[in-house]
Amino acid sequence: MTEQPSGTPTAPKSVPAPRDRHLRDMADCIRFLSMDAVQKAKSGHPGAPMGMADIATVLFKEFMQFDAADPHWLDRDRFVLSNGHGSMLLYSLLYLTGYADMPVEELERFRQVGSKTPGHPEYRHADGIELTTGPLGQGIAESVGMALGERIMNATFGDDLVNHYTYVFLGDGCLMEGISQEAISLAGHLKLGRLIAFWDNNSISIDGATSLSVSDNEIERFRASGWYVLEIDGHDTDAIRNAITTARGIEDQPTLIACKTIIGFGFPTKAGTQKAHSDAPGEEEIAGARKILGWDSPPFVIPEELLKEWRAIGEKGRTARMAWAERVKNTPEDLRREFERRTRGELPVNWKAAIAAAREEFIKSGADMATRQASGAVLNHLFDAIPEMLGGSADLTPSNNTKAKNQVEITPGHYDGSYIHYGVREHGMAAAMNGLALHGGLIPYGGTFLCFSDYCRPAIRLAAMMRIRTIFVMTHDSIGLGEDGPTHQPVEHLAALRAIPHLGVYRPGDPVETAECWELILEQPRRAALIALSRQPMPLLRKEAGTENKSARGAYVLLEAQGGPRQLTLIATGSELHLAVEVREIMQKEGVPTAVVSMPCRLLFEEQDRQYQKSVLGDTAARVAIEAAVELGWERYIGFEGKFVGMHDFGESGKIQDVYAKFDITTDAIVRTAREVVASLKG
Amino acid sequence: MTEQPSGTPTAPKSVPAPRDRHLRDMADCIRFLSMDAVQKAKSGHPGAPMGMADIATVLFKEFMQFDAADPHWLDRDRFVLSNGHGSMLLYSLLYLTGYADMPVEELERFRQVGSKTPGHPEYRHADGIELTTGPLGQGIAESVGMALGERIMNATFGDDLVNHYTYVFLGDGCLMEGISQEAISLAGHLKLGRLIAFWDNNSISIDGATSLSVSDNEIERFRASGWYVLEIDGHDTDAIRNAITTARGIEDQPTLIACKTIIGFGFPTKAGTQKAHSDAPGEEEIAGARKILGWDSPPFVIPEELLKEWRAIGEKGRTARMAWAERVKNTPEDLRREFERRTRGELPVNWKAAIAAAREEFIKSGADMATRQASGAVLNHLFDAIPEMLGGSADLTPSNNTKAKNQVEITPGHYDGSYIHYGVREHGMAAAMNGLALHGGLIPYGGTFLCFSDYCRPAIRLAAMMRIRTIFVMTHDSIGLGEDGPTHQPVEHLAALRAIPHLGVYRPGDPVETAECWELILEQPRRAALIALSRQPMPLLRKEAGTENKSARGAYVLLEAQGGPRQLTLIATGSELHLAVEVREIMQKEGVPTAVVSMPCRLLFEEQDRQYQKSVLGDTAARVAIEAAVELGWERYIGFEGKFVGMHDFGESGKIQDVYAKFDITTDAIVRTAREVVASLKG
Repeated sequence: MTEQPSGTPTAPKSVPAPRDRHLRDMADCIRFLSMDAVQKAKSGHPGAPMGMADIATVLFKEFMQFDAADPHWLDRDRFVLSNGHGSMLLYSLLYLTGYADMPVEELERFRQVGSKTPGHPEYRHADGIELTTGPLGQGIAESVGMALGERIMNATFGDDLVNHYTYVFLGDGCLMEGISQEAISLAGHLKLGRLIAFWDNNSISIDGATSLSVSDNEIERFRASGWYVLEIDGHDTDAIRNAITTARGIEDQPTLIACKTIIGFGFPTKAGTQKAHSDAPGEEEIAGARKILGWDSPPFVIPEELLKEWRAIGEKGRTARMAWAERVKNTPEDLRREFERRTRGELPVNWKAAIAAAREEFIKSGADMATRQASGAVLNHLFDAIPEMLGGSADLTPSNNTKAKNQVEITPGHYDGSYIHYGVREHGMAAAMNGLALHGGLIPYGGTFLCFSDYCRPAIRLAAMMRIRTIFVMTHDSIGLGEDGPTHQPVEHLAALRAIPHLGVYRPGDPVETAECWELILEQPRRAALIALSRQPMPLLRKEAGTENKSARGAYVLLEAQGGPRQLTLIATGSELHLAVEVREIMQKEGVPTAVVSMPCRLLFEEQDRQYQKSVLGDTAARVAIEAAVELGWERYIGFEGKFVGMHDFGESGKIQDVYAKFDITTDAIVRTAREVVASLKG
Repeated sequence: MTEQPSGTPTAPKSVPAPRDRHLRDMADCIRFLSMDAVQKAKSGHPGAPMGMADIATVLFKEFMQFDAADPHWLDRDRFVLSNGHGSMLLYSLLYLTGYADMPVEELERFRQVGSKTPGHPEYRHADGIELTTGPLGQGIAESVGMALGERIMNATFGDDLVNHYTYVFLGDGCLMEGISQEAISLAGHLKLGRLIAFWDNNSISIDGATSLSVSDNEIERFRASGWYVLEIDGHDTDAIRNAITTARGIEDQPTLIACKTIIGFGFPTKAGTQKAHSDAPGEEEIAGARKILGWDSPPFVIPEELLKEWRAIGEKGRTARMAWAERVKNTPEDLRREFERRTRGELPVNWKAAIAAAREEFIKSGADMATRQASGAVLNHLFDAIPEMLGGSADLTPSNNTKAKNQVEITPGHYDGSYIHYGVREHGMAAAMNGLALHGGLIPYGGTFLCFSDYCRPAIRLAAMMRIRTIFVMTHDSIGLGEDGPTHQPVEHLAALRAIPHLGVYRPGDPVETAECWELILEQPRRAALIALSRQPMPLLRKEAGTENKSARGAYVLLEAQGGPRQLTLIATGSELHLAVEVREIMQKEGVPTAVVSMPCRLLFEEQDRQYQKSVLGDTAARVAIEAAVELGWERYIGFEGKFVGMHDFGESGKIQDVYAKFDITTDAIVRTAREVVASLKG
């Protein structure tokens, strides 16, 4: 039935004669390191590195501004490998250009435990790896944030300090992922002329020819989103050079360079087919490639002259970097200090005064308030205190309360602001925020409804894995959003997010806790965070003076039992905290000394020592946990004897009080449950 | 800074004179029901129903083939409201056309607990609601599955039995979501000419004018994906009629009808602005609309003549339906019975023989086998037994083992097959599968890596919520995938998926359990399921003869303790089950009577009675749970005294045995933990 049966090659297998023999030799360094490493590991993806080697060679040799000796130079050009499975392309480049922590031994340990060369590039594993890629489409979407970050920093600090490009390699898979559309649409809208993407148009994916599943005209698609598009032969070094030169001349449009390439370029039988995509090619295939490409070095050995030239590429940015450092030095002191502070990721000295001011405001007012509103109020204070905070929302600005009073909007071609209308692009927003955080000098936060954290999970996961300070502001965090109903009511989301390693998930229970959570989020530069906020108002529960951050240990005793040793512990978060407080009052009146524990951040509580944990949870096994979400995970704290009051199903559309009543999350129901728990332990 | 400040109207507010006064009156029925219901609920979205009322009127009056008296007629045209927040458009249509379970009282109870008119349309809440929508982009993506399902059923049963259209309304938000790109790309590729989409091109979203965040040329974007595109004035009834007629004539391309509309058409001050999008308009605004549109009926009252005409629309399909029923009756008996069986969602009488055959094959061979391979073998048997099973993969066919030996591929324009190359479009695939399941007559399953369940969570959630039989086949289900590393190694995914209400998450521990899980998945027509499968081989543990499905109760005692009452219970799933078996042997030798519990499906286990649960978990509190994933949720079974052996961090790239060793998921480590647990209970 297939018009194009799996496995049919769609690109010519024969190796075209190079325009520039020398550049081909340099590219072959990448090719052989890649195929030899994959062969040694008996695992990996040789096809993309071999197909894109010519492009990488011209880009790095003639355009990329970087200095292998200073991988963190802020004004370096960024290189993003969105088709992260082609990781050997990047590792080869890092070795060839002389990054100190990428000796050839690391290439030989490709895909082994403890190596700097895992299957897909991982941020912080080695210098020169700008971000973690592999899940398709994430790289192109994060690069939009990087390119935007460059323009925003440029708008603040000028051409002298920030003035670079973001180059992205991407494959067919990246373009098929929906997130790529959100990314290219946003990049085109914002006129990010410093973003230049190279599409490895090799017409092959894992199932076979891409024609099995896709018929898009990618050229027209990018043009429809405002990109400038060039089409070239990805093995023609002159064409590559000309295309990059042209792209760099386009100021107000991102550029796509569609590169027709042969996957596994150089393989005698696998080139141009999906057999080149993954897995070890086999000794015979590699021997064939050595013949075809005229390469007689043994595995992992680069001929001296070629290595020397590659090493020179790694050094060629040094002059520019020194000149930049000089310009930094000559920058007026105030601006220079601010620039250096921001790029180090340090917060301003007095930023906590903003948190204190917000707390004071809440306590003075004493009013009931939704935590999303409280968050908005905190942001109003933070906006003045931390200028590098960069807000936004996926088209829910008025609902998410993400925009501070005086925050100026970033618009196409105008980057001198700090608020972004991301559009209804939750996934693209989340990934762009990662890119902004990775760029340096900026602290991105962005909002949507908690339910739609599902739309951005792959990007949230990467933020947690990369340990970067991306801040997800997620409002309407339970059935408490009411009438929009189950499609919009998060139920399983808190559990699903708490399951992600390293992600700080915060759910404050009143305005003061909201301020505390913001403080905690901001002061952890190596932890991605998500703050879950209510749509509905709740009472102020924390009325004490002072600035002690009680949320800092993840959970704490909000109200201790009175009239005797604790007989019952109520544990709650967010909008259910005040229910616990009300229930405690009833239980106390019934003669049951009852404590209320607030647990705004499970992760931080788990990091405390056992003694503190026990002091909070109490000696009695009579515990009731209350959260308008699924139970999963709460068993840890309530044990066999305790009980959970929360959701056991999807929600329902209705008035908030009716919905809470329908699912039995009321003081009455909690009191009943609490009595049962206490009685069963006495009985 | 904004070039287009929030709130600026971009569409004319004045109401253009209608070409057809009568059609305008009919459309106004929708408009007033919508605004009155939103006003009464003090909540909702009047803008879209008012903007799209003219389109809906022409579509339903002159084209939609349906019979309100038989909402489940298989050959009806499908109507999908992808911009689900405009739910009052749909509820108005259902009431007006006379669906028995949608009296006007339900419209008056819009957005109240227990009503048939929740904030967003919910499948199974009322007849005529074809699917649950609200999370943006899902509707257009599911409609691709519906339209594809129609063609597949048509290919099997012919024009006489299956021959209808799928019409979709969608908004700007749907188009900004990445999933829409996956959907339109797939629909264009597959040449789904029976799919006709109407874009509510009103240039307004919640933050303000869409120009705040998007500059795409949507027309060119759709054309780039092979769609036929028409642009019309969405209030010009002649243009609407002509466009639909043209679209129905296009056989091999889906059609987008881009309809320029005024959001909140008829509102005196809010029309054409984002103020019309959400929230109750206020009595004054509605009074103004009554004046402008010349409408003097009280709220919820439709003038008799107009209602009569709408009711006639609800009946006009009756003749066609009777003729269809006649054709069904005249169909050769075998084909008719097959058609009726499939459309009822019933499995063939002898289908379980396929499961039994697969089991027998596994036991006879006795070989180690990855559960993904076992799943592939089961599918080979099922392919012959259940012809309505429709497979596919998001470009991982050889890895997911989703394609049965004789399965024929569906290709553009050729629908006489049962395997779909979905491309690297996990989200689009998941949503399309939902649409295929909703269409009726088909049982869709599709594969990707478990890690990329994150990419399709919004669609998985809807499958669970709609209680439809969509089957997600997710392989490479732990760090056991090895070299691809943490970006591809699921760690938190099992917990995150188990958190979704009603979703059956299965993780079989050997080939026989794999067959059992497939059996359980298929025999529950009202439960979405996800089966997590290993990349790596594991030993056959279930060697007994017979066909008893031990997995049916979610967990069971695989091996009971010997030599005395149980002193230790090991609970495991999937690829860790054989580790538990090995550890049991060691513990038994050490004189600790040890049982192994296999728990392939937590959800089914939770549905058992307490007594069974206790009998499986055992009396002793000494329990160790083993799963190469995060602990979240396991506390429920291990309690305070038990322990968990699994993952506490993201994974690592490396050989499988090295990775397991690195994270201490080995028999040695489990034995150490087991000894500790047993000792601590004795001490």
